[in-house]
Amino acid sequence: MPQDLQQVNAPLIGVPGGRHLLDTPALLIDLPAMTRNIERMAAFAKAHGVNLRPHVKTHKSVEIARRQVAAGAVGVSCVTLGEAEVMVQGGIPGVLITSPAVTPSKIARLVKLAQRARPGDVMVVIDNPQNLAELARAASELTHPLDVLVDYGAGYNRTGAATQAKVLEMAALAAAEPRLRLRGLQAYAGNLQHIVAREERGAAAAALRETVAGIVAAARRQGLNFDIVTGAGTGTHDLDSQQNAFTELQAGSYVFMDAEYSRVLADGDQPSPFETSLFVQTAVVSTNAADWVTVDGGTKCFSTDSGVPLVAKGADAASRYAFFGDEHGKLMPPAGAPRPALGARVEFVTPHCDPTVNLHDAYHVVEGGTLAAIWPVDARGRR
Amino acid sequence: MPQDLQQVNAPLIGVPGGRHLLDTPALLIDLPAMTRNIERMAAFAKAHGVNLRPHVKTHKSVEIARRQVAAGAVGVSCVTLGEAEVMVQGGIPGVLITSPAVTPSKIARLVKLAQRARPGDVMVVIDNPQNLAELARAASELTHPLDVLVDYGAGYNRTGAATQAKVLEMAALAAAEPRLRLRGLQAYAGNLQHIVAREERGAAAAALRETVAGIVAAARRQGLNFDIVTGAGTGTHDLDSQQNAFTELQAGSYVFMDAEYSRVLADGDQPSPFETSLFVQTAVVSTNAADWVTVDGGTKCFSTDSGVPLVAKGADAASRYAFFGDEHGKLMPPAGAPRPALGARVEFVTPHCDPTVNLHDAYHVVEGGTLAAIWPVDARGRR
Repeated sequence: MPQDLQQVNAPLIGVPGGRHLLDTPALLIDLPAMTRNIERMAAFAKAHGVNLRPHVKTHKSVEIARRQVAAGAVGVSCVTLGEAEVMVQGGIPGVLITSPAVTPSKIARLVKLAQRARPGDVMVVIDNPQNLAELARAASELTHPLDVLVDYGAGYNRTGAATQAKVLEMAALAAAEPRLRLRGLQAYAGNLQHIVAREERGAAAAALRETVAGIVAAARRQGLNFDIVTGAGTGTHDLDSQQNAFTELQAGSYVFMDAEYSRVLADGDQPSPFETSLFVQTAVVSTNAADWVTVDGGTKCFSTDSGVPLVAKGADAASRYAFFGDEHGKLMPPAGAPRPALGARVEFVTPHCDPTVNLHDAYHVVEGGTLAAIWPVDARGRR
Repeated sequence: MPQDLQQVNAPLIGVPGGRHLLDTPALLIDLPAMTRNIERMAAFAKAHGVNLRPHVKTHKSVEIARRQVAAGAVGVSCVTLGEAEVMVQGGIPGVLITSPAVTPSKIARLVKLAQRARPGDVMVVIDNPQNLAELARAASELTHPLDVLVDYGAGYNRTGAATQAKVLEMAALAAAEPRLRLRGLQAYAGNLQHIVAREERGAAAAALRETVAGIVAAARRQGLNFDIVTGAGTGTHDLDSQQNAFTELQAGSYVFMDAEYSRVLADGDQPSPFETSLFVQTAVVSTNAADWVTVDGGTKCFSTDSGVPLVAKGADAASRYAFFGDEHGKLMPPAGAPRPALGARVEFVTPHCDPTVNLHDAYHVVEGGTLAAIWPVDARGRR
């Protein structure tokens, strides 16, 4: 009897005006806008001679990954093993796990997954010789070698070997290990993605490209080939595509675009080349206060790590939102603006798409006023 | 083939030392500590002559609700209709929905739920005459009246009638409506719960008690009886139990206690009467940086609305944590302290329990080093 929103809202699929009848709070995808984003990034990558392996931590959806691959992506990037399991199960090729698999449980799951996929369709990064040895030991169960990329601690040094020397040491160990197959280098600089000043972001990205090119050249001199050089997020996809430093881009957020990335990718008067396609629809549930109305989306509906939601539809665009507990938001229209009525729908741009998606079980896929489909957030919560 | 952590870790139930072998990041409950918290709050309520209707937005678990009811709670409070559906399905009595049900879809679900439960086992708050009329219309499908409480906008004015006059007007409308049954008054002051200075919190709570007592007395003079007067969170449970202003407490966080509530409830040298029973176990996945190690719990594992996780086990207690992306945390041991090794487990106290629980699918219930059980977070994501 208890139902999730996916079940509650399913009867509205195809019903005219169904978008305005949804049970809330509902995560929405504007399908035409998302489709244009997928096509634009695919065209960009093709024009610049780089591959695209979009990061699915943004959407955690097999259906969206399928559309990215259909548009030309060589595969997908995943941060958790659980995301990778869901993608392989969904038939997505070229799955790269961008964080090391370290504990015995994760290594056992990784080997099982690699055995199940076609050779080359599961790759994992390594940043530690002990971990490399453990992966090699576990990979002896495989009928084919385990594909690995050496992770370089570009940027945050969240994971990754710290220096060129350490990267080359790891690469040599991997190349010498018959149960592993060295596929490439990862150099993802998360810290560059959100630098709003384009010039500053450009300089930092250029410095990273030079470092990466140096590592790749040094490896080649030692007979170690990094066939794949992967990195680059939505914020630096255009910069990292220059000078052939990277062979592929891991950008993920471009499919949805949130409030923050829209600011980063706007260039002077030029708006971002990608459109916001992700929204949350809330309903007004209380109207008794003089200066605000209360909507049914709070800290369990929008991520709180990156500012507040922005009004997209249903209220004056200059209305301000403030978090108002687990399930509520305080929506403050500017002086003189009309107040949304009890039960009215208000749609918001999400402050940060990835962790907001992670709070929802399903996407409500809309085309204009119509609910076209509901897609599960397949890998939500998968570690 | 893709599995969630609940399935991955299930074989460890009852295995000696299973707590130290978990796939991570894993949400943990220290069962003896949680049991003591449940017993302490039940004993407190009994000693003070108030009922306890704990808020399940904290734990979203039927099993924990059952234990609270077994210890003496008269029912549970829920903020979303989805939580209430899960609790009724789980056989939990006395379910109060603490936020108005406004849209046609929510009203339809509410009526279905009320029909399914025994009369009196589903109650909802109202704060708007239009909503009251719509509930009454929908309740005509019921074989018994729909139980309602008038919501008073104590504190935040997130929801609730704004003044005593408005409360009494709503109560009179509800009492006059045969398809509704007026059960009581809700006056929950979320804003008082987190005032750390005990004296200031005490003064604010006393002012609210006086207001509530005034409303109840005025209602009684009009022949309107508020049999239930509900409110009070963990932060004011002791204050709100004074002078019989409230007939029951909605406290929820006391079962787990997070970093913030432990600060609020400590009284000078006296620690909080409730113990931290909720933790997250992470594993160290990268150790290449000089000043930190990286653990596998980030913004999709810990809520970001209320500070950072605190180390509980597995690393020097003075180590600092910083968010490090969706799936990672930066753990910085103090100078000279030992660094946790690759793969080592580090357990944390959560910054804010409710939204952190909402990021996980299951509780790993531990007793010492043993994994005693895994319980689903049944109502996670239910709106």
